[in-house]
Amino acid sequence: MSRDLRALFAPRSVAVLGASSDPAKWGYMLARGALEGEHRRAVYLVNRKGGEILGRTAYRSLGELPEAAELVVVTVPADGFELAVDEALEAGARAIVGISAGLGELGPAEQAREWAVVERVRAADAVLLGPNCLGVADAGTELRLAWGAFRAGPVGLISQSGNLALEIGELAAAAGLGISRFASLGNQADLDAVDLLEDLRGHEETRLIALYIEDFRDGRAFARSASAAVAAGKPVVLLTAGRSEAGVRAALSHTGALVSDRRAVDAACRAAGIVIVSTPNELVEVAQALLTGRLPRGPRVAVMGDGGGHNAVAADVVTSFGFELPVLSNGLAQRLAAVLPANASALNPVDFAGGGEQDISCFERVAGMLLESDEVDAVLLTGYFGGYGHEAELGAARAIVGAAAASPVPLVVQTMYRDSAAARELRDGGVPVYGEIESAARALARLREHAEARARPFGVPELPDAAPGSAVDGYWGARELVERAGIELAQARRVRSLPEARTAAAELGYPVVLKALGLLHKSDSGGVVVAIEDDEALVRSFSDLAARLGPDEYAVERMAPLAEGVEVIVGVRRDRRFGPIVLVGLGGVYAEIFHDVAVALAPIDEDEAEDLLRSLRGAPLLTGARGRPALDLRAAACAAARLSRLAAARPDLDEIEINPLFVSASEALGLDARVIATERGG
Amino acid sequence: MSRDLRALFAPRSVAVLGASSDPAKWGYMLARGALEGEHRRAVYLVNRKGGEILGRTAYRSLGELPEAAELVVVTVPADGFELAVDEALEAGARAIVGISAGLGELGPAEQAREWAVVERVRAADAVLLGPNCLGVADAGTELRLAWGAFRAGPVGLISQSGNLALEIGELAAAAGLGISRFASLGNQADLDAVDLLEDLRGHEETRLIALYIEDFRDGRAFARSASAAVAAGKPVVLLTAGRSEAGVRAALSHTGALVSDRRAVDAACRAAGIVIVSTPNELVEVAQALLTGRLPRGPRVAVMGDGGGHNAVAADVVTSFGFELPVLSNGLAQRLAAVLPANASALNPVDFAGGGEQDISCFERVAGMLLESDEVDAVLLTGYFGGYGHEAELGAARAIVGAAAASPVPLVVQTMYRDSAAARELRDGGVPVYGEIESAARALARLREHAEARARPFGVPELPDAAPGSAVDGYWGARELVERAGIELAQARRVRSLPEARTAAAELGYPVVLKALGLLHKSDSGGVVVAIEDDEALVRSFSDLAARLGPDEYAVERMAPLAEGVEVIVGVRRDRRFGPIVLVGLGGVYAEIFHDVAVALAPIDEDEAEDLLRSLRGAPLLTGARGRPALDLRAAACAAARLSRLAAARPDLDEIEINPLFVSASEALGLDARVIATERGG
Repeated sequence: MSRDLRALFAPRSVAVLGASSDPAKWGYMLARGALEGEHRRAVYLVNRKGGEILGRTAYRSLGELPEAAELVVVTVPADGFELAVDEALEAGARAIVGISAGLGELGPAEQAREWAVVERVRAADAVLLGPNCLGVADAGTELRLAWGAFRAGPVGLISQSGNLALEIGELAAAAGLGISRFASLGNQADLDAVDLLEDLRGHEETRLIALYIEDFRDGRAFARSASAAVAAGKPVVLLTAGRSEAGVRAALSHTGALVSDRRAVDAACRAAGIVIVSTPNELVEVAQALLTGRLPRGPRVAVMGDGGGHNAVAADVVTSFGFELPVLSNGLAQRLAAVLPANASALNPVDFAGGGEQDISCFERVAGMLLESDEVDAVLLTGYFGGYGHEAELGAARAIVGAAAASPVPLVVQTMYRDSAAARELRDGGVPVYGEIESAARALARLREHAEARARPFGVPELPDAAPGSAVDGYWGARELVERAGIELAQARRVRSLPEARTAAAELGYPVVLKALGLLHKSDSGGVVVAIEDDEALVRSFSDLAARLGPDEYAVERMAPLAEGVEVIVGVRRDRRFGPIVLVGLGGVYAEIFHDVAVALAPIDEDEAEDLLRSLRGAPLLTGARGRPALDLRAAACAAARLSRLAAARPDLDEIEINPLFVSASEALGLDARVIATERGG
Repeated sequence: MSRDLRALFAPRSVAVLGASSDPAKWGYMLARGALEGEHRRAVYLVNRKGGEILGRTAYRSLGELPEAAELVVVTVPADGFELAVDEALEAGARAIVGISAGLGELGPAEQAREWAVVERVRAADAVLLGPNCLGVADAGTELRLAWGAFRAGPVGLISQSGNLALEIGELAAAAGLGISRFASLGNQADLDAVDLLEDLRGHEETRLIALYIEDFRDGRAFARSASAAVAAGKPVVLLTAGRSEAGVRAALSHTGALVSDRRAVDAACRAAGIVIVSTPNELVEVAQALLTGRLPRGPRVAVMGDGGGHNAVAADVVTSFGFELPVLSNGLAQRLAAVLPANASALNPVDFAGGGEQDISCFERVAGMLLESDEVDAVLLTGYFGGYGHEAELGAARAIVGAAAASPVPLVVQTMYRDSAAARELRDGGVPVYGEIESAARALARLREHAEARARPFGVPELPDAAPGSAVDGYWGARELVERAGIELAQARRVRSLPEARTAAAELGYPVVLKALGLLHKSDSGGVVVAIEDDEALVRSFSDLAARLGPDEYAVERMAPLAEGVEVIVGVRRDRRFGPIVLVGLGGVYAEIFHDVAVALAPIDEDEAEDLLRSLRGAPLLTGARGRPALDLRAAACAAARLSRLAAARPDLDEIEINPLFVSASEALGLDARVIATERGG
């Protein structure tokens, strides 16, 4: 259920509690910002000591105000926070922005204090942003209650870091973009990322949503809300932290965030169609491109420009991002040649060879022909454009804007003269302009990823209402669990002695596998012997395991014909924010060395599981390549889908893994199973 | 032998042949640039029509000048080029800059014209830059005979593209760097990249050499010259094109360049210690970092800054570039904590938690402690520094410069306020400052790669004087050639009929491999049957190959125990510019899907071959990992070294390949050999 945030972003009156006349203090900055909107709403500055602040008489308490302030900004020391909030609620505040720090981010005791406050806020049907936040801003309502000023524009920004929000704002302004609405999340004691995302989804001036989030709270709700925004035509771009151990450490010390595994975040992004980025710069790069509303339908790019060196470098860079530069058709090449000098090249890259100096209009004509051609999925103009500096160049820029607007094919521009009038003309006309070729190429690549993600939407699956099941007892319990879920495992016998092992092997038929049980990582500790060909070898292997590891029991299992297939890993892990995450990957060295895995929010169906497997870099191993046989991809997908449903129904299990799942031309057969149950308490 | 380029970069007098009073023409721009150095040397403007240019009376010919012009810039139409050069030589020119285009870049006929001119230039003991070049510039001698102006600085720049040189110049200026000496290569009819590289190596004001090159000409000489510059303490950074098919196409249409395979260029860079980059932006990024003269000795980075979000993002980005952020020792953490607020985190990232607002000096103190600590190999300051804007911040910047200068550990800075006074202070003090965190992290990563390359120098090997050997006859000729070079191959028998095959298999012992010969890619066309276990299977396989492919002859070979080892590829390919290039890689799917290969200039010795194998991502497969046995890496390295020596001695062979080379715990055994001889003529 979405909360009403009207009083937060479009208040009829504002009070700053803790306003100050000391320019070094937050209370000063906030007061000054609030006063900038004084022509739109009543602004009241409140300070216990009274006096004069920025030319206004300060009130000593909210009770003294001539009317209830709809929005109260609280910037008092932490120990006065509860009193201040209570005062605000009593005075009739509908929304409170908690700037005060030193609360829930410090630890459990302070969190308890916050929760108590939030209960009172909710009881009063008000909302609280923060505490430990840096404020809010709204371009449309001229609300400025945050650190720094933002240029107005189409980007809604939610951030858990003030400095990163500032940086995003600066980079956006340099790219000709701006911020429609900004909220600093802080400790998310009451309002969280989902509430603010829901608000931006319905906010007309916001055409794209940018997020920096460390703690996702209800991850599934977050993903659903983002998914709805994307479906409504508002792209969502997410910058997050905690993709490395040190990043987790940093986020933890910063906001006390419960940081999610990067794979869980990736899975949520895939499900919701969120574009995930690693830096503020990338965020603004891709935002520019997404705001064109045009996505490449395939990998074909045309590169154009007046400068052979720039074209050659651009061709290499664009290719390195997975694009192709097809040689253009004879017909198109001839039409291009007709507007270019004799020594120009119209193959792709289209090199004007000085044509721009002779007649600047060749830029618009070439761009137009390429955009209309149906021979490419995106066009990249690179290099010198913007450097001519004459009036005619502005005209060419306008004509390029027109050509881009008339085409469904995205056009992006890289120029060494990013601040030129022509570049501004392009940007103002909605054409993304980049200063560096790698930025332009990367933005195009992200557009293409986004196009593919939107073409095959995973969606955010519902989790069934489920209670913990019965405890899973070791290896045999794990086997039983996954077999009951419909996943076939290699036949196995439980044995405790060599005679039992010999009998089991004889029953199963050689070759067999012998496993020492009771170890977490059987393979790593040398607890698994494969390809035991005969009784003699079994005796040897058993004695060795017994001597080295002395396990209580063993499994004797049928040996799969490994040479005839490929080993994959299928697993589900539970993230505390996003719930169960399915992971599929190629097994063995592919996993260890090449880290070739794909993830999704569980549960997934068979088609999604197949998509996931096909998205692996090593997918050609499964689908058949260079004379290899095609394997039973569908069987592997079924196993993954079943495992994902099993995990979704068992919230008490932290991890379930089939590793390896042996996939041959005729089957998918689990060769090992492992379950880890949640440890409660602590 | 290096050429004397004094007259090119420090002429006592200059004439511009083709000077013009029309501001739209090159002859105007060059004349204006030449006149800017008039207080340093005599400048003569020459135009057939005489008249007045830029307030000077134009001479009608070089013969009219009062003295010989040491440097003559020729900017006349292509059909007047020979005459102009002859006139210049006759008038006593020591150096000629050929701006004129429409010559050798067009094709063989024009190349012949160029060569004739070059002969006369060399006979007169003069030098010619270009033609089809954009000029020269020298900051120290105030020589400006090129398009655009460069800020003065420590970077020597050689470029085969005028626009890219301009862009590099602009980006360098924005990074606080500048250009010491610039030469546009053009067609390299006389002076080539090697001559100019040699010149920059001896040029005192040049501290780093930046190159954009499409055609390397004598690639080995180029690599040797670059290697000498690197050894002399001048880093060499190379931007090149042609790493993709479209890039090759673009370079070809641009300068008619004979573009080298990217692997050849990579091999040369590895040999010479050249840092290779993909974009102008990367070039300037890494140049800044290299100019500090400090290289990280390992992967440990400390991240510091006042802003948890920035720190968290930086930690992730730095980690994604292969660095580690170790948790700092208790001792160091305590010393750091002593200068930071109570809620700061000194784990790494070091988060000031607002400490900078309270006392800006904590930046210099933390930086100093980290740089001195011996606990990290590089320090990265990220985020807000530069945004305080007060006088004390400048003082902190100066102190940081001092701390960086006193430490052998590199410090790099990312700030959202790249143009602030504090940022300038840092840059002027030699601390690299980046606007984006990915730039800072990438620069550090390139420094580390460079440190590793310099620690294990490959060097540029000499090629033996060698004549073509006798022709290599098919598969059996290839086998004989590599076996004579000391590389062991699987035992094989040549057969033409099924009875012969059965006899051969019986002699060799089952299992065997059967190959249909006379096909270029035996495996792709299904011409190889492995693991033939018995006579019956042999008969079946033979009949199948005979029916499908109908080859004239077959090989029956002993089957290697593939499950006990790993297949690698060892090959040597000849690049027309760089000569023979050794390539090693993991075989099969690793090569196809993961493109896991490493390259070097041939020949290499056994140690270098081992280094090459160890540099593969999949090296753990060879060296033993997660319970796998260590394989005979040395034997594989010996095979690679021997193959590289063989190839170096056989200039008539384009390609020699052992694929696969089977490596087990006890041996390296070639399972197939292939030789492609150079096709002459055409």
